[in-house]
Amino acid sequence: MLNVGIVGATGYAGEELIGILLRHNAVRITSISAKIDKPKGIAEIFPKFKEQINLICKEPDIKEINNSCELVFLALPHTVSMGIVPLFLKAGKKVIDLSADYRLKDTKIYEKFYHTKQIDKIHLAEAVYGLPEIYRAKIKNANLIANPGCYPTVSILALAPLVAFGLADIDSIIIDAKSGVTGAGRKIAEGFLFSEVNEDFKAYKVNMHQHSPEINQELSKLAGKKIKVTFVPHLLPLSRGILATVYVRKSKKSKAKSQNLINLYKKFYKKEPFIRIRDEGEFPRVKDVTGTNFCDIGIKDNADRVIVIAAIDNLLKGASGQAVQNMNIMYNLPEYTALL
Amino acid sequence: MLNVGIVGATGYAGEELIGILLRHNAVRITSISAKIDKPKGIAEIFPKFKEQINLICKEPDIKEINNSCELVFLALPHTVSMGIVPLFLKAGKKVIDLSADYRLKDTKIYEKFYHTKQIDKIHLAEAVYGLPEIYRAKIKNANLIANPGCYPTVSILALAPLVAFGLADIDSIIIDAKSGVTGAGRKIAEGFLFSEVNEDFKAYKVNMHQHSPEINQELSKLAGKKIKVTFVPHLLPLSRGILATVYVRKSKKSKAKSQNLINLYKKFYKKEPFIRIRDEGEFPRVKDVTGTNFCDIGIKDNADRVIVIAAIDNLLKGASGQAVQNMNIMYNLPEYTALL
Amino acid sequence: MLNVGIVGATGYAGEELIGILLRHNAVRITSISAKIDKPKGIAEIFPKFKEQINLICKEPDIKEINNSCELVFLALPHTVSMGIVPLFLKAGKKVIDLSADYRLKDTKIYEKFYHTKQIDKIHLAEAVYGLPEIYRAKIKNANLIANPGCYPTVSILALAPLVAFGLADIDSIIIDAKSGVTGAGRKIAEGFLFSEVNEDFKAYKVNMHQHSPEINQELSKLAGKKIKVTFVPHLLPLSRGILATVYVRKSKKSKAKSQNLINLYKKFYKKEPFIRIRDEGEFPRVKDVTGTNFCDIGIKDNADRVIVIAAIDNLLKGASGQAVQNMNIMYNLPEYTALL
Amino acid sequence: MLNVGIVGATGYAGEELIGILLRHNAVRITSISAKIDKPKGIAEIFPKFKEQINLICKEPDIKEINNSCELVFLALPHTVSMGIVPLFLKAGKKVIDLSADYRLKDTKIYEKFYHTKQIDKIHLAEAVYGLPEIYRAKIKNANLIANPGCYPTVSILALAPLVAFGLADIDSIIIDAKSGVTGAGRKIAEGFLFSEVNEDFKAYKVNMHQHSPEINQELSKLAGKKIKVTFVPHLLPLSRGILATVYVRKSKKSKAKSQNLINLYKKFYKKEPFIRIRDEGEFPRVKDVTGTNFCDIGIKDNADRVIVIAAIDNLLKGASGQAVQNMNIMYNLPEYTALL
Repeated sequence: MLNVGIVGATGYAGEELIGILLRHNAVRITSISAKIDKPKGIAEIFPKFKEQINLICKEPDIKEINNSCELVFLALPHTVSMGIVPLFLKAGKKVIDLSADYRLKDTKIYEKFYHTKQIDKIHLAEAVYGLPEIYRAKIKNANLIANPGCYPTVSILALAPLVAFGLADIDSIIIDAKSGVTGAGRKIAEGFLFSEVNEDFKAYKVNMHQHSPEINQELSKLAGKKIKVTFVPHLLPLSRGILATVYVRKSKKSKAKSQNLINLYKKFYKKEPFIRIRDEGEFPRVKDVTGTNFCDIGIKDNADRVIVIAAIDNLLKGASGQAVQNMNIMYNLPEYTALL
Repeated sequence: MLNVGIVGATGYAGEELIGILLRHNAVRITSISAKIDKPKGIAEIFPKFKEQINLICKEPDIKEINNSCELVFLALPHTVSMGIVPLFLKAGKKVIDLSADYRLKDTKIYEKFYHTKQIDKIHLAEAVYGLPEIYRAKIKNANLIANPGCYPTVSILALAPLVAFGLADIDSIIIDAKSGVTGAGRKIAEGFLFSEVNEDFKAYKVNMHQHSPEINQELSKLAGKKIKVTFVPHLLPLSRGILATVYVRKSKKSKAKSQNLINLYKKFYKKEPFIRIRDEGEFPRVKDVTGTNFCDIGIKDNADRVIVIAAIDNLLKGASGQAVQNMNIMYNLPEYTALL
Repeated sequence: MLNVGIVGATGYAGEELIGILLRHNAVRITSISAKIDKPKGIAEIFPKFKEQINLICKEPDIKEINNSCELVFLALPHTVSMGIVPLFLKAGKKVIDLSADYRLKDTKIYEKFYHTKQIDKIHLAEAVYGLPEIYRAKIKNANLIANPGCYPTVSILALAPLVAFGLADIDSIIIDAKSGVTGAGRKIAEGFLFSEVNEDFKAYKVNMHQHSPEINQELSKLAGKKIKVTFVPHLLPLSRGILATVYVRKSKKSKAKSQNLINLYKKFYKKEPFIRIRDEGEFPRVKDVTGTNFCDIGIKDNADRVIVIAAIDNLLKGASGQAVQNMNIMYNLPEYTALL
Repeated sequence: MLNVGIVGATGYAGEELIGILLRHNAVRITSISAKIDKPKGIAEIFPKFKEQINLICKEPDIKEINNSCELVFLALPHTVSMGIVPLFLKAGKKVIDLSADYRLKDTKIYEKFYHTKQIDKIHLAEAVYGLPEIYRAKIKNANLIANPGCYPTVSILALAPLVAFGLADIDSIIIDAKSGVTGAGRKIAEGFLFSEVNEDFKAYKVNMHQHSPEINQELSKLAGKKIKVTFVPHLLPLSRGILATVYVRKSKKSKAKSQNLINLYKKFYKKEPFIRIRDEGEFPRVKDVTGTNFCDIGIKDNADRVIVIAAIDNLLKGASGQAVQNMNIMYNLPEYTALL
């Protein structure tokens, strides 16, 4: 039995983590904490967990957490994680951080988009970007996982084969992404009130979202040259799910070769347990992946342009599911445990 | 042209009032105010009003409001209205107050349910409960209208004919009411976040909602004896609309007479422009009244029990529409102006 | 490994059954059939099952089904089940029927509400009503389970303790029930179109729904006398979940004893793995049970009247979850397998 | 008073037309017809119109319609309109056709996308494409209006200034469009059931939607050269509203001139009563235009690429509102009558 702790258990990602881990037969949750006025049973906070878990949720006590767990999940707001990650790592614990704090290798970019200094450059250097489809080998031995953002997960997975094989005109990439509301976390703000979001739809942070540099960083690595995508996120009036519609012009190389792109994708992701490539003419809808850890991808090859449509559940493959997938890899557990 | 002001313009009821009054051919909005950090164009706050209204929304300045309007609508949180109503009345203005401050004649009950003292007993005495179907004559000459709550409007209208004619066993009245989320106002609280309300449904304040005493007060007046209803409100995952399902046992008198209740309701509301009684076997749905000022009522007569189903749009007949209906009555304008 | 078949796999209950059984470690789905134009991979019909199941869905072939399974789930429209149930039973198979065909012991009532003759009276006599909280012992040895309706499940569970102990005035029971849209099945009719249901709410079949006699039958058995409830179902603009608000006057016996009703409920359901009784002042919301097999119940004791609020997921405890719970009982598997 | 008829009154566009025309002070609806089993009061079909209109809806009787109206609105399925349009025109009536039958000047393209022959080429030649912002002068004198599709309306309005002034690289235009469900009409098909659309989001007809050629035709005319856009429509889980996110690379001419694009748009649409251009950094959301005839447009100028975001209500500016705007123009009524 692997003992794990969850810090930041009261947000949507934390809540989802609890649900997944309760179904995991090799894991025991031993510590649950969050910013909270006074200690409260987690099943009182989330009555759906009643009679399934008895732990008390309280303010995080690092020492107590280090005593009770081997692995700590941090489902904290950005900029809070990096304040405590070193305390777990020094105590020999492993950490899966769901925040953005350790994702961006360039601290200047981090500071520009998150409006605060990156204060833990030492561990930033060793943090592994937790996208198993790209970094599985490194994840196996990592002590600190920077769990990817939801938009970057779906965007990178949608583009990786094209970009890695040099088939995309790298100046042409447009990602038109649409996310459900839990993507914003349990943020109490007017913009996320039911009567504001319901029957509405809008773009936001048009081409200036903080997930852009994360996408750019990873695609650039895959391409071996600098990529800067056009990224426009939109807010869907539904609770969970992301669908990204990606537009790419083919590179000269691609036009020359005239490959079957669907086969290319299938080959690229052949051994991946959570990637499903659709056949010609089929495209994923959000519901195909809701409640699952899958990323489903459909491809339309239009002469000189490719349209890729990809969908994930933002709280699973886009957050807590992927975190558990990373955990399974780190501890040599079957990768799909508790995720099917 | 009647010059009117709106205090509390940034809530849902205020926003709705602006929309209605912009369509009103005998009214000009001359003042818009609200609790607000700094003055801002109302069309900047609500872009849907762009190119339709140019007023600046700022903190209420009583003197300025009194100088610019004859009638003031107050769409303020409960307990705030009574602090400023006297200032308008003393200046000879008329006031339609959408809050609960002047609805409950018994100040002890007000204080119990609203957790604050009623501090304006003088005007409380003269305030007219603004339900035109019951108090039209008084409304005509009123200076201060206590505009009814949304649940009381639909509940009283559903029950008035039965209660007024002594046909209801007054100990048996159960009101199972379901409201859309705008009923709670633009309240920024976790419970009203999209991801909390969406795909959910729940009862709240079970038999202890602050609208119960308002319903009891008005039904008791109609019956000539004390009525205490069982009232359970529920939160619907939709933006606007209330449907109340009302269960009543017949009184002995009623059983004796065996009237056609649908005809009774039609007669009772014969001259009412905004009440529509359904024929046998037909019941209103929320959509029949969304965006309208109508209250639709269907009746099922089951031997010794009656089921009455009534629907309104909580922001119109349940708030701002009824407020404008009251204004039309007070100023001798056709009652339906701007409401059809 | 228990081999099971699903007949009627393309409806919502069938789809849900597949999902549950894929997570069940002691069961193998060996046959999937439905009314269908031509055979099609079930994962083509429901892409969310891709890479998880390879079976072909085709028109039911009784012989083939009997050859491949020990247990057959029927998720068929009412009146279709009874035509084929005998064929499975004669072949020595066990059947869990999710339709209404074997629920009503009085065939006259069945025929009145379902507008067709009950044509299999022999098996009707031996069918066990599959509500484990009441009939667990009989379910263990049953060959044919009449899996309860969704409204009856939540209604009976909400009322059983009061009725069984004679605490309810049996003439006073009102069930105001609200269901999500999957409760109607995948029925292609105007009334279930998105643009009709969205932002709407309505009562339907007011006090004449076909689930009324099922509720009456079971409550009458529990009470030992004839009970006829007032039952008004409503359609919620959400996909899954039922919440019932139940109003009961106390019987004389009840008023005399003045018990703590919450404790009474807790005792009554003490050993039940899927019933959760809320503490004083707490009431379930739909989300507490969505995606679970739980029935959550809250009780408000108001002097002479009791209000009981109960919630289930209509596709789980109200249909397929309960069907699997019954299967687990019949085959001596831990009752919660695949349901937590 | 202008007497008008509505053929196809029972679809969403027809229903919306009735609502608008009931508020129109210069128009009287004299005939209402639709494909219908037997004649029925239109207020029985749509109870929200009760006590506002008494007409009977029956199968269209051309002679009767010609006798009672001067102008006929056709809100019919594609391919049905062209069968009856000649009968109205020959009788000297004017027609506003909301279907696609008279929109595409190239009948081969029509036949490819609508799978039927265009059988009325004579009137096709004289039909005026009813987009007032481009064709107001022609609309004034037209006898037959081809009322634009919803996607084309928002797409053309979003692109017209860029395309007309040669500022767009015409090979680069991508329209990522998202529509509410009423866009599909009151079509009774599994894909539009509440439980299918709710909590879902998907692309459909990826780059092969029948509105593509309509967009291409009109943009090509504006540009004076052939334009072929990439157009991907998506289905939003909401009832009404379209938002299009449009991506355009600048032409060389545009890069050379470095104009302020927002000012350019404001100038282009200066006298338009229903186009609102947003200021720098502001983008429309669906709610800004729901229930209105406005098209709101926001522009982001990114060095060599422009992102244009435009929103309309698909049933108003995208269908019935625009139809009434056309009628107002044809009959010299103030263009905004009944539309504000």
